[in-house]
Amino acid sequence: MTGFTDDDLSCDAFLGGRLHLWQPRHGYRAGVDPVFLAAAVPARGGQSVLDLGCGAGAAGLCLGARVPSLRLTGLELQPDYAALARRNGDRNGLDFEVVEADLAQLPADLRQRQFDHVIANPPYYRAGAHSPARDSGRRIALGGETALETWIEVAARRLAPRGVLNMIQRADRLPEMLTACAARLGSLEVLPLAPRAGRGAELVILRARKGGRAAFRLHPPLVLHEGVRHTRDGESYRAEITAVLRAAAPLPWPEATAARPRNMSLS
Amino acid sequence: MTGFTDDDLSCDAFLGGRLHLWQPRHGYRAGVDPVFLAAAVPARGGQSVLDLGCGAGAAGLCLGARVPSLRLTGLELQPDYAALARRNGDRNGLDFEVVEADLAQLPADLRQRQFDHVIANPPYYRAGAHSPARDSGRRIALGGETALETWIEVAARRLAPRGVLNMIQRADRLPEMLTACAARLGSLEVLPLAPRAGRGAELVILRARKGGRAAFRLHPPLVLHEGVRHTRDGESYRAEITAVLRAAAPLPWPEATAARPRNMSLS
Repeated sequence: MTGFTDDDLSCDAFLGGRLHLWQPRHGYRAGVDPVFLAAAVPARGGQSVLDLGCGAGAAGLCLGARVPSLRLTGLELQPDYAALARRNGDRNGLDFEVVEADLAQLPADLRQRQFDHVIANPPYYRAGAHSPARDSGRRIALGGETALETWIEVAARRLAPRGVLNMIQRADRLPEMLTACAARLGSLEVLPLAPRAGRGAELVILRARKGGRAAFRLHPPLVLHEGVRHTRDGESYRAEITAVLRAAAPLPWPEATAARPRNMSLS
Repeated sequence: MTGFTDDDLSCDAFLGGRLHLWQPRHGYRAGVDPVFLAAAVPARGGQSVLDLGCGAGAAGLCLGARVPSLRLTGLELQPDYAALARRNGDRNGLDFEVVEADLAQLPADLRQRQFDHVIANPPYYRAGAHSPARDSGRRIALGGETALETWIEVAARRLAPRGVLNMIQRADRLPEMLTACAARLGSLEVLPLAPRAGRGAELVILRARKGGRAAFRLHPPLVLHEGVRHTRDGESYRAEITAVLRAAAPLPWPEATAARPRNMSLS
């Protein structure tokens, strides 16, 4: 692939039209996952954000559309997607610095910078663990060559003290993520995203803080769709999820609650 | 402490009177947690079960009361509790072999045996991380000197091929548990136990299979109590939980569901 032409691209609305992204018609196209990731980030205006593996920029730009005055940086391995991410920043009037590099081999100037937030939506499949996609961009976006541990290691290094990582990933890779966080990040929280009530989570958002010392918290699942099964065509998102996807609302993140002593029937 | 006298003990009913356990009036007393653990174990008659750190025998004996013809072995560090566990086996007509040993230093004959199931309800607090209990038995039961990783390592070694570990533990120690399982056990599943709907899990049951290769599964939380808050005195358990606690029903464990491809909006 040697660059997208406009015929290769579609321009798609996100966040109820607050954001428009050029994306390849055939290749990796952002779904709702980067939108949820961006909505989970507790960023405040003026803070710096690094979007690891930003693709065409969906997560970073959704965050920029919700929280004004962020300093947004994206890192993307594939030149075509890096170029798209820059174009998408311009298209939406957002200042989005995009660095084209492999996250396992960051350029020197990026290795000297730290960020208040790191966000990442790493590939969902291990390389070789799925049928090969014909399109190389889609293949890399779906099943990168880079281990999840490397993503977390790079994120931890680039976070400022007290900086926060938010990562969205398949729920079945949670053990790998939590193991990679050990000794690197603290105050881990996991928010499972369940398609429907009573269903297991297919995705999780992992939040961790550099230097954090709070106990691990497993939150109740955030349920995405109404009802217990798919019953009609069209969207069935719950109202608070629709607000995230269509009105750029922040993801409802469970508040910290006071720890209660366990009832252990101790006399 | 040099042995309990009968004045030190109470005899308490479990599983709606199907089981009666002698327990120290002042010391570590079993609550609902070992009952949930026992109810989670998918054991069939004739199989062998090792209860690591069995205390007075609550988990192993609850399992024996539910599933007939198990070969039950308990391991307990503290002589007084080991003696109680033997007495409780006899009291309930259950054949409960109790080995008195430190799980980090198993006797040779136990090191040569393997079990279809290992169950464990390890201490909930790290040694030194809580205010010291006056009673040494209670102190060891609450905050053992043995790292959670050692519990899982010993369990993995004692499991037969395809054997299953079930462990109940505080939810905030999930990262430690999952990390310890890596490279030792597979087919990990986590069932969060949430006190009420919408509340974070305080406990989790971890299930893992020796030699298992299935993907990690994070199940929807099993909610213990009715309602969203405590509104009245007395029990408020949901009906299926009452059945576990009072009628020796198995814990409702989520069925395996066919994996669905993720909707990634790929064209």
